Amino acid sequence: MSEPTQTRRDFLRATGATVAAATPLVAAGDVVAAMAGQQAVPTPPAKTFGYAVVGLGGLSLSDILPAFAHTKSSRLTGLVSGSVDKARALAAQYGVPDKGLYSYDTYDRIADNPDIDAVYIVLPNFMHAQYTIRSHKAGKHVLVEKPMANTTKDCDEMIAAAAAARKYLAVAYRLRFEPYTQAMIKMVRDKELGKPKVILCEAGFNTRNPDQWRLKKKEGGGGSMMDIGIYAVNAARYLSGEEPTEVFGMEYSTPGDPRFVEVEETINFQMRFPSGVLANCVSSYGTNLNRFRVHAENGSFEMEPAYSRRALGMRVFRGNVIEQRNLREPDHFAAMMDHLAESAAKGTPPLTDGVDGRNDMRVIEAIYESVKTGRPVKV
Amino acid sequence: MSEPTQTRRDFLRATGATVAAATPLVAAGDVVAAMAGQQAVPTPPAKTFGYAVVGLGGLSLSDILPAFAHTKSSRLTGLVSGSVDKARALAAQYGVPDKGLYSYDTYDRIADNPDIDAVYIVLPNFMHAQYTIRSHKAGKHVLVEKPMANTTKDCDEMIAAAAAARKYLAVAYRLRFEPYTQAMIKMVRDKELGKPKVILCEAGFNTRNPDQWRLKKKEGGGGSMMDIGIYAVNAARYLSGEEPTEVFGMEYSTPGDPRFVEVEETINFQMRFPSGVLANCVSSYGTNLNRFRVHAENGSFEMEPAYSRRALGMRVFRGNVIEQRNLREPDHFAAMMDHLAESAAKGTPPLTDGVDGRNDMRVIEAIYESVKTGRPVKV
Repeated sequence: MSEPTQTRRDFLRATGATVAAATPLVAAGDVVAAMAGQQAVPTPPAKTFGYAVVGLGGLSLSDILPAFAHTKSSRLTGLVSGSVDKARALAAQYGVPDKGLYSYDTYDRIADNPDIDAVYIVLPNFMHAQYTIRSHKAGKHVLVEKPMANTTKDCDEMIAAAAAARKYLAVAYRLRFEPYTQAMIKMVRDKELGKPKVILCEAGFNTRNPDQWRLKKKEGGGGSMMDIGIYAVNAARYLSGEEPTEVFGMEYSTPGDPRFVEVEETINFQMRFPSGVLANCVSSYGTNLNRFRVHAENGSFEMEPAYSRRALGMRVFRGNVIEQRNLREPDHFAAMMDHLAESAAKGTPPLTDGVDGRNDMRVIEAIYESVKTGRPVKV
Repeated sequence: MSEPTQTRRDFLRATGATVAAATPLVAAGDVVAAMAGQQAVPTPPAKTFGYAVVGLGGLSLSDILPAFAHTKSSRLTGLVSGSVDKARALAAQYGVPDKGLYSYDTYDRIADNPDIDAVYIVLPNFMHAQYTIRSHKAGKHVLVEKPMANTTKDCDEMIAAAAAARKYLAVAYRLRFEPYTQAMIKMVRDKELGKPKVILCEAGFNTRNPDQWRLKKKEGGGGSMMDIGIYAVNAARYLSGEEPTEVFGMEYSTPGDPRFVEVEETINFQMRFPSGVLANCVSSYGTNLNRFRVHAENGSFEMEPAYSRRALGMRVFRGNVIEQRNLREPDHFAAMMDHLAESAAKGTPPLTDGVDGRNDMRVIEAIYESVKTGRPVKV
């Protein structure tokens, strides 16, 4: 990352100041004010890593655009939308200059905009591959929403495009950048409660509008598994630190339900990992599920909510004692965007790279094959 | 049931008196004292339904024998053990007369003891069928510990023996007689939170002594599934109120672990029910698991602990509200023993009859077949 940000981070660490849910500039201002009269007044850090957000749907409006208020090094420098009016209104609200506004027709011109270092692709699933590849060709780093693409074949092409452009490709697994998930991963992999035996991951919600693109096979690539079940797949993988060798899935989709004409409602699935850990998982568009639990020899680790955008919950079952822990939770999106900024600055690959995203898709394809054939499938 | 007990129950209902964790005689005495000076003084109820407990291992000592202090109509009138000394000592402690003491050699003479109405069989699994059949031949009702037997073939013979003797055969699924489980079943089947979609049941513990009979294939009939996983099978069945049509299981048993030379450690299994509900379950001898959860359209129902002998926990997730409920929990074993006493008195079959027990075994056999063949199995 650029020097000013490093300096600011070191400064905050040195003074012990904490900044919660406030814009960094304001927070830095407070620190500066608090230090008035002292000798060294640090310069407020600059946000130097520019993002264009591609696709201005619900998630962009509710979480991604507001997250730039909480970033340390990332700033919003571009907006890409099919609607000029929407883009202009948001540009005014978030301070994006006119030269940062693009339609899908003019998209490739981002190549000429030096203020855009990376794009954050928040388009419907079936467009992820195309826009990732075009963005890399335009010389940009890419952060792409999950699922990375609708097929592993597309994932391969995206990974190749990143390599050819010598740019980073990251998949937006925001939970890897928040402290509860990070603490869980560390405790499980450190075998704090002994050898992990069983992993349970359930992700789902009762989806509403039957007309949304997520319920169209071509656009969503599948149903609940592509959108929400992927959290369970991803969690079982990050908790175990392993890739499954075998999967089995059982589907149920309510007959006559207009939401599930093209795609699946619920898939219960199992995964076998090389160490012997067995995972039981659920993906559903019919009921709320938002939990994982790792059962080890001497106790268990639970998160519920496990996949929400904020206010996660964590419990550790140690013998007869249930420990509830409260950790300081940053804006997941801000932390994730800053991670790619840092990766780019340092020249180190992002944590949730294209291979990570492809590994989820590989498992999901195997689960779909199992559901289709009624047989367990080797991954 | 005999008249005095009916009278007492009606009396307690009429006065609104409650009797918690005290012997009925003492409690009845309190009620009598409270009513001193009033006109009608009810007779303390007699415990008229006599049980012989067959097998004096850990469960009998820790829970079953002490439970007779909490029964309304059941009394301990017999003890059957291979150890004369152990039987004599317990007989003295629990007030069982000499004529109620039997060894396995003299077992069939229970036929001549009119104080024994029923036997409660607490022997190793492989002896359940033989002792159930001998008990029915001796003209006794039978309450047999779970699993009912090691094979469905044995279950069939047990059911036939009960029919031939015109006596009741009940399987000791004690949770059906405690109010948390009963409340859960009612709420789920009444669709209080909409249509149930996914059932999760996990039952397990980290078993210790490698030399116990439960870890011998011939004696236990199998491993964790027979002993503890059966709770998950049973729960998925009583919660849904349905019988599964298809199962799939994945096993892992730690290589080189002396506990799992003959039998399985962990099986993760799935069940499909006719209504479309899918169940994800775990059976394990390697880690503590003690929970079920039913996810419906508008929320979920959870019990944890779900299968313990006391101090169960219940949560209802209704929208964003988590309701924790505390119900008065009787002694599970006392309630179960009294239920069979009542069944016998009324001439109504017990709730957890031989068919119920056989249905669990049918599912377990299908899960074992799935594990062996690596294929889903139709039940």
